[in-house]
Amino acid sequence: MIGIFDSGLGGLTAYRELHKLLPNEDFVYFGDTGRVPYGSRSYEILERYTKQDINFLISRGADAILAACGTVSSVVLDDVKGSYNVPMLGVVDASATEALTATKNGIIGIIGTGATVSSGAFDRKLKAGGAKEVVSVACPLFVPLVENGYIGRDCTVTKLIAQDYLAKIKASGADTLILGCTHFPIIADIIGDILPDVTLVNSGAAAAKALAKSYKATANKGSSEFFVSDNPVNFDAVARIFLGGETVKAQRIDIDKY
Amino acid sequence: MIGIFDSGLGGLTAYRELHKLLPNEDFVYFGDTGRVPYGSRSYEILERYTKQDINFLISRGADAILAACGTVSSVVLDDVKGSYNVPMLGVVDASATEALTATKNGIIGIIGTGATVSSGAFDRKLKAGGAKEVVSVACPLFVPLVENGYIGRDCTVTKLIAQDYLAKIKASGADTLILGCTHFPIIADIIGDILPDVTLVNSGAAAAKALAKSYKATANKGSSEFFVSDNPVNFDAVARIFLGGETVKAQRIDIDKY
Repeated sequence: MIGIFDSGLGGLTAYRELHKLLPNEDFVYFGDTGRVPYGSRSYEILERYTKQDINFLISRGADAILAACGTVSSVVLDDVKGSYNVPMLGVVDASATEALTATKNGIIGIIGTGATVSSGAFDRKLKAGGAKEVVSVACPLFVPLVENGYIGRDCTVTKLIAQDYLAKIKASGADTLILGCTHFPIIADIIGDILPDVTLVNSGAAAAKALAKSYKATANKGSSEFFVSDNPVNFDAVARIFLGGETVKAQRIDIDKY
Repeated sequence: MIGIFDSGLGGLTAYRELHKLLPNEDFVYFGDTGRVPYGSRSYEILERYTKQDINFLISRGADAILAACGTVSSVVLDDVKGSYNVPMLGVVDASATEALTATKNGIIGIIGTGATVSSGAFDRKLKAGGAKEVVSVACPLFVPLVENGYIGRDCTVTKLIAQDYLAKIKASGADTLILGCTHFPIIADIIGDILPDVTLVNSGAAAAKALAKSYKATANKGSSEFFVSDNPVNFDAVARIFLGGETVKAQRIDIDKY
């Protein structure tokens, strides 16, 4: 059983990808909707939250874990995964590899939350892999914009904010851009319109592909369970954005107990 | 000693007002920056957070408490305050009273977080006080916009979102609008430009005035202490927005212990 977690529901884009690649596998998803957002938290808080999220997924039977959260993957996952016997994958390695394969001029951009960009995790991985230049920009308003439905390709507000955020990427001449947060693929149209000749790397999908390749199936019921840490009242509406229209049900758990 | 709390730093606008009115009083401020935002949380989570915030302020010596958070004031404060011997004031009563005094045509608007608007707390208070019509609109993007500095009077993005949110208030003919969240006074210029003939009621300031009127000073050192629940790295920059340029220092506490 594959466990997937994220600060909220953005990781459902990674679940969707994995479920497509491994349709007979069992999945358990946890979205920490009671403590979202992670992108502005300190290291200590992120470490505690990440351990609790992992403990919960393991308690449900997960034998492999995908941290679909760009912030967790960048800031704490490498420090935390040594404490567990279960294989764990974040979004940094897989998307850096995909970006390094895609780039022709060696200039790679990264966009993510404030914590992701400050961590420098993508930059280090890309530089170590031979990138000539790495340009990273924090895009803190993209998450609230997506969660509030400002996602249409012609949405003036999101376009204006995106132009603002992406100006530095455009000026750098980057030919490849990592969408380092699972919320960002939802507005890939808007980003692509501003950077028409740039290859966009979906970090959640890249990690899903890497996990699907290495995973040895252990159960074959093809079941999927979804859990959240706050009241799942608005779960349906927001989940549908990330699942491309599909409807699923979520149960609430008390994450502080894990 | 007066205790003030908010989900984040927006309540500093209420602190600023109170400190002006009672310059010789002692203050303790708690901003729950590790668990912000409150506006999208469920009742159970809000209740737990509110009790912890109050317990902390009392542990520091507060003998009167101002809940500067519109969400807490609307959703849980009335249920929680019976458990304490310390007088407690939220932002609902004082701003409803101010709005009822200000209105001429009896049509009053309210803007706040999703949780504040869903609670119907302002609506009930205003209707009970004789308002003819009450129009409330949730403005979930105002908080992230303010916290990310999109606050200039000519900021196109915030203006566009505000036009969107305020269309219903404008159409209603309201002559008075309660800014039911302590972040909103920061963009009062933008709101005022869209609703030029509408009286804006600053809910934090209204509550501060009401508390100052009833409070009997017990200590007179004129001290102010500031606490937050996450790393206070960005505290200075954001606090300055709410304090009109003043710089203060904050200490971090573990709010889960209270």
